[in-house]
Amino acid sequence: MKALIFDAFGTTVDWRGSMIRHTARFGLPEETADLWREQYQPQLETVRSGRRPWVNLDVLHRIGLDIVLDELGNDLPERYRRTLVKAWHRLDPWPDVVEGLTQLKETHIIAPCSNGHIAQSVNLAKYAGLPWDAILGAELARAYKPDPLVYRASADALGLDYDEVCMVAAHNDDLHAARAAGLRTAFVPRPTEDTEPTSDWDIVAPTFKELAR
Amino acid sequence: MKALIFDAFGTTVDWRGSMIRHTARFGLPEETADLWREQYQPQLETVRSGRRPWVNLDVLHRIGLDIVLDELGNDLPERYRRTLVKAWHRLDPWPDVVEGLTQLKETHIIAPCSNGHIAQSVNLAKYAGLPWDAILGAELARAYKPDPLVYRASADALGLDYDEVCMVAAHNDDLHAARAAGLRTAFVPRPTEDTEPTSDWDIVAPTFKELAR
Repeated sequence: MKALIFDAFGTTVDWRGSMIRHTARFGLPEETADLWREQYQPQLETVRSGRRPWVNLDVLHRIGLDIVLDELGNDLPERYRRTLVKAWHRLDPWPDVVEGLTQLKETHIIAPCSNGHIAQSVNLAKYAGLPWDAILGAELARAYKPDPLVYRASADALGLDYDEVCMVAAHNDDLHAARAAGLRTAFVPRPTEDTEPTSDWDIVAPTFKELAR
Repeated sequence: MKALIFDAFGTTVDWRGSMIRHTARFGLPEETADLWREQYQPQLETVRSGRRPWVNLDVLHRIGLDIVLDELGNDLPERYRRTLVKAWHRLDPWPDVVEGLTQLKETHIIAPCSNGHIAQSVNLAKYAGLPWDAILGAELARAYKPDPLVYRASADALGLDYDEVCMVAAHNDDLHAARAAGLRTAFVPRPTEDTEPTSDWDIVAPTFKELAR
């Protein structure tokens, strides 16, 4: 195993706690974060199904936000909507992440394999202090997980065989797709995501720090 | 200026001193490094001109090496040729680079914008301790500098306007192309590359450490 690639939202960063805080700043009710996230898979699916050409996650987040605000009857001004979309570039890491990644980086290549685009992943890394070696993921493949293209494009970009790369996620479905694409798999539970592994993943670790050990 | 993107070969790393050392390990004469590098632009040009579809720099380096060894009448075995191509993933940084980049990273996004592919740039960063925020450059655009697509794809990937990104190089021709593509420019002289700026670049600095100041 030469590289570990990581899911971002939920696995590396606490999207939910962070977005509750960000949306509260604009006077939006606490359920806004969850309602917005409920738009995530349906909007990704518009691209995965081919109904929409590949657009980045800022575009899809904006479409989802407009739907949610419409449902809430909220006429938040345009400039605040744009600021809120960019709030997905500023999410807090889980407390074990920076130390765990720093340890893993000593012996492995580490990179995000997120549905976030390169700019979002870079800004998130700068904000959260994530010491990635490279930024991989959806934009390289112009596809969205769980499309196998995303996992394979990330391994290909590193010049590695699929089984030399391990996908790390707090989502069993992400790992099922990574395994089907030929990658190795590591499950890390998170309180807001999947809390139990549902398959015999190559590694199950309670935190990134344990993963490094 | 929000991001600085860097040429690799000659600007960030001492390709020449490193490759003289690498080739000497295989008993090759000292001129091998320079002869090999002379194949660099002609091989890139096969892609830039459209005569060859985009292939990564390992492929082009291998073609160039075979030509040089043929000229030298050297029948170096296949496995050593493969090792030598990968030696371009292990080049020493100039002495000011790691400290300068570490300082620049505190206030800016930093990334390579090299004709090296992602795997080569990642391996080089691991070997040389280069603290990049992302890996940009030729592979993102599937084109080779000085094609304007390479500079623009790097800025686009960061979600930045072209004039928010500064290209850093020890090659005046690289900076002419970056400026023509809309980027800002910084010249850092290197003893084996261009030693003097030939235009009014936005910044001229003797080292990466001075650039950070």
